[in-house]
Parts: sequence; structure tokens; C-alpha cells
Amino acid sequence: MIAVDVMSGERPPEQIIKGALRASEEFKVNIILVGDEKLIESILKKLKHTSYKRVKIEHSSEKIDMHEKPTVACKDKPDSSIMVATRLIREGKARGLFSPGNTGATLVASLMNIGRIEGIYRPGMVTFVPTLNGASLLIDAGANPDCKPEYLAQFAFMGEVFAQKIQKKKKPSVGLLSIGQEKSKGNELTLKTYDILKDLDFNFVGNIEGYDIYNGDVDIIVCDGFVGNIVVKVTERVFKLTFEFVWQEIGYHLFQRLGFALAYPAVKKLTSKMDPREYGGAPLLGLKGNVVIGHGTSDDVAAYHGVRIANLLVENRFNEVLIKRLDNFGLRKMVA
Amino acid sequence: MIAVDVMSGERPPEQIIKGALRASEEFKVNIILVGDEKLIESILKKLKHTSYKRVKIEHSSEKIDMHEKPTVACKDKPDSSIMVATRLIREGKARGLFSPGNTGATLVASLMNIGRIEGIYRPGMVTFVPTLNGASLLIDAGANPDCKPEYLAQFAFMGEVFAQKIQKKKKPSVGLLSIGQEKSKGNELTLKTYDILKDLDFNFVGNIEGYDIYNGDVDIIVCDGFVGNIVVKVTERVFKLTFEFVWQEIGYHLFQRLGFALAYPAVKKLTSKMDPREYGGAPLLGLKGNVVIGHGTSDDVAAYHGVRIANLLVENRFNEVLIKRLDNFGLRKMVA
Repeated sequence: MIAVDVMSGERPPEQIIKGALRASEEFKVNIILVGDEKLIESILKKLKHTSYKRVKIEHSSEKIDMHEKPTVACKDKPDSSIMVATRLIREGKARGLFSPGNTGATLVASLMNIGRIEGIYRPGMVTFVPTLNGASLLIDAGANPDCKPEYLAQFAFMGEVFAQKIQKKKKPSVGLLSIGQEKSKGNELTLKTYDILKDLDFNFVGNIEGYDIYNGDVDIIVCDGFVGNIVVKVTERVFKLTFEFVWQEIGYHLFQRLGFALAYPAVKKLTSKMDPREYGGAPLLGLKGNVVIGHGTSDDVAAYHGVRIANLLVENRFNEVLIKRLDNFGLRKMVA
Repeated sequence: MIAVDVMSGERPPEQIIKGALRASEEFKVNIILVGDEKLIESILKKLKHTSYKRVKIEHSSEKIDMHEKPTVACKDKPDSSIMVATRLIREGKARGLFSPGNTGATLVASLMNIGRIEGIYRPGMVTFVPTLNGASLLIDAGANPDCKPEYLAQFAFMGEVFAQKIQKKKKPSVGLLSIGQEKSKGNELTLKTYDILKDLDFNFVGNIEGYDIYNGDVDIIVCDGFVGNIVVKVTERVFKLTFEFVWQEIGYHLFQRLGFALAYPAVKKLTSKMDPREYGGAPLLGLKGNVVIGHGTSDDVAAYHGVRIANLLVENRFNEVLIKRLDNFGLRKMVA
């Protein structure tokens, strides 16, 4: 059962519902649509889905907007869709969750209501990095601005298990984002993390540099959430900026303008490829339920994939495998 | 007097010498070419510069290669061109320095032989960030992987004084690179740095995000050297990657190929614009002499600009202005 927060996005709830229904039918997964009951009912009616057996509705009377401060909003709005949806997981009524909402609020609500797996220091947020031959994972993409070496070590295995179980990569490689390939290069955090990871029996390729993120030869890139957030944003911006720069250079050169116009279908196709919708959003790993946080602008395609990924995490018993993998290396926090 | 390390680059010393001579003539600046005396003499002869009065030669018998470990190499090769060149500054024979060499070795040699200005915690390395309307500065670009808030506060004013004195910007704006615009967003380091900077009377615009680095509306972007290094490398890679992606998307589409070919002059012109040569390299600020570290592949154009910038720093009394500015805000380290 996957809970779907249909209210928190910037687009109309109808788009989220449409995508969630499509995933539900295609993957035969039960969903709970969380939000204003009357609104959801009317949308289901419109979409002719009123008697569809895999769908339940859970009413929530409030929603948290994009601009709201996560901690304040979660406290002030206990009946918001994201708070209700995360509570469904705590109560055992759902095992996965997709929300197109305020990333921070989803994170806070998840920590409050779902909680971390025992022995996990911090949940790691995954983002997908486009490469010439597919997509690599970057973890942590922004959930944890301040990290300790042991957090990063756990992120490495969250990424590894995700790549194995969800992306079906056989022996995914893990790299530590740093400022030089030599093991002596880095900051205190990465140097200590390197020391933890280097002796473990898995596919650790050592440090990788900013240049190498997009080569596609490293499946999982590990970094703290401050660096990860900045890498993601710089990438997004520079990608778009490159075309703006080219257009600026072209100016009034007629043939170059024509050229740009002719090549434009490729540019457009590429832009959609860089679009994160096909992954539905950012999985938040290490919690007692499987959460996927969509972009605020998530539409039906993003919602479809978000539900798909949340369901894959549940079906592939991601958490169980992760726990085993961490215990194998003694990487879970000792609880007194 | 500007010392020029002609040996440490990946290109032949002749290119460095050629560029340095051009800057010397154009800006009437005295230079000391540091390297193998016989080799330099033969090159000067070839370039018909034997009697040129603004040029001196300082012999050094060794050189540090690109791949060498900075600390080890600087200790093992006291007569390397970069060690000799930095000693010229210590001895008062030169006030500025350009080296196209091993960045780490230049940094280490500079710290060993030149030393920091009194009360400066760490030297800050500047890089130039291309924007749609010119270039912004990013500091620190990689000299200091681990920073404290007070280092970043000093970097802010190194950048400010550089933008004022060298780039001739009137009231340059300073932004703190973080993961959200709100002042509550960031990691421990940036939150504390924000607290220091927010009350000072200068053009502080607060936090800026990874998206905003390239907008050109912030003149100086402050971050630690770990983040800075990664931002620089990601930017460089994504910029090139975008064209690789477009070309991959185009595949065998004839018209799109034709389009790409037609627009190519703009792409090429842009690539040269993104090229850091016109800044000569990365100024290393906060030392008792003015150092510019060129890229390993520096050619005559880079050397010309490297000497130009080093000379501008000296002529504009960068260090004096910086000290005044820091003292104005009580930002120099108290010396017992």
C-alpha cells in the first residue's frame, strides 16, 4: 500500500491522482490518496475511477505550501496531507509514500512520524545524475547539510542497495566525491569516510572529482547534503546556461541562428532527458517506510514514477536488504 | 618587479617567456624569469630580447612536475623554479609572482617562503566564474578544504578588494554560497559565517544558491575550498558535457547535424570565452606578495595575463587596502 499526498504540489491534485492511478493499475499496487476527501472524490468521478478497488481515500483538512518553514508548518498543521500520509506509515496502513511537496516538510514529517530505521544515523536523499550512458545516483542530495563520516558510510550502502535492487545493477561502484583522486586529497569529513570505506569488501572506487560525476563509470556518488545540494543546482543551471550562452554568442548571425533552429529538436529532447520526472523524485532512504519526494512541479508523469519507485522499494524489501548489508559490515549505530 | 616561474608548466618555457615579455613591454613592468639560465638565455636570443632592460634572469636548477606531491617536492627540491621564485619575494627582490605550475606546490612554496599577511588565517584562491554579463569571482576555489567562519569572512573582503581594485567594480556585492536563500539555511560553517558578515557595513547580499552563481548579479561568491573546487570542476564538465549530450541526441539526424555544424562557430567562440586564460589563472590572496597561479596548460596568453594581474595587484597596493579593510571591521586575527 502506497500513500500518495495529492495536495502538496504546485500543480493541481488531479495530475498527481492521474499519475498515481496509472501506476496503481499498471503495477497492481494499492494506493491511498491523501487530501481533501470531497475534492478527491470529484476528481475520481471525473476520471471515472469511483469503483476502482485498489484506491482508498484518506481525508486531510490542511496542506503545507511550498514556501512554508518545514518545522513550523509540520507542528502547526498536524492534519496536513503530508503529516496524515506519514502517519499512515507509522500506523502500518501504508509502507510507501509519494509526496510532490515541500521537500523540507516531507523530510520533517517523515522523521517525526515514520522515523529512522534502528541504527541509521540520518536518512539519505538520492538524486539521479544524468550521464552519457544512463544515470548515476548521488546521495545525500540535500537532507543533511552537516554530516559525520559514519553517515556517509551508511549513505554509500543505501546507494549500493538502491542501485542493486531498483536499478538492477549487478555490482554497483561507489565513489566518494572529493577534490582529488588520491586518497590523501579531501576535507576532514571525506578523509575519515575514506578510511572507513577503504577496508570494506564492496565495489569502492575511492575518491572521484567534480569532473567525473557525469562519466557514468561510477554508479553511486557519496557526499554530504550541503555539497550534494550545490552540485545538483550547479548542474541544472550550467546545463541550461550553456544554451543561453550559445544563443548569446550567435546574436544576429543568420546561419548560426538557422543552425540552432535545425539542431533544436535535439536540444529539446535532451532537456526532457535531464528532467527528473522519470525517477519520480528523490527517494529518502533509511526510514521505516519508503518515501519518494517529488519535485514541487511534479505532474502526472512524475507521480506515476514516484509511486512506481516507492512500490519497487517496498516490493524489493529495500529496508531489510539494507539492514543486512550494514550489519554485515558493522555499520549500524550501536544502541545502548 | 614580478617573478615568473617559466619552468613549471606543461608547455615549453618559451611560451611562458613570450607572454611575460609581452606583458613587460606593454605595462612597463620589470620581470625576473626564473628557471634554467642557459635555456632562458637561448630563448631570449631566439626572441631577440637579449638587451631588453626590464628583464632579469634568476637561475634555478630544478623543477617540480605536475604529478609531484606538493609538500614532498617543495622539501626535496629547494632549488626548483617555484621555490626560487617565492624566495625572491621573501628577499624583497620581487613583489609579485606568476607560476603556471602544480597548484599545490605553488601554494606550499608560497606559504613556506612568502607567508601570510599578519592576521590572515588562510590565503584565499580566486577563480573567475563566467556569467552572461561578464565574470564573477569565487573564493576559495580550492586552497582550503577545511575552513572556519573567520576564514570565510576574510575571503569575502579579499574578493571585495579584488573586485574593486582589479575589476574596477564600484560597490561589489558579496554572496555566501549555501543551500537556500533564507538565512536559516546552510551548514554550520555558513550559518556562522552569515552571522559574522550580516552586521558589517558592506554590500552583503546574504546566501546564494548553486543556481545563482552564474546570474552575474553577485560579484563575489564565498565558499570553502572543498565546495569551491567541486563547483569549478562540475561547471567545467557540465558545460562540455552539454555539447556531448546534444551531439549524442542528434545521432544520425541529417538536418540536426547540419544545424550543429552551422551553429558551431558560436560554440567554439563560447568555449574560448569559458577559457580562463584571459585572467591568467587563480590569484592567491592574503600572502605577503601577490601570487597568480596559472593553469598547468598555460600558454603565452595565460602568462601575459598572469603577469598583468600580478602587476595590477602590486600597483594597486592590494595588500595595503585589504589590511585596512579588514582592520576596519576588526577581522584580522589578534596576534598574541
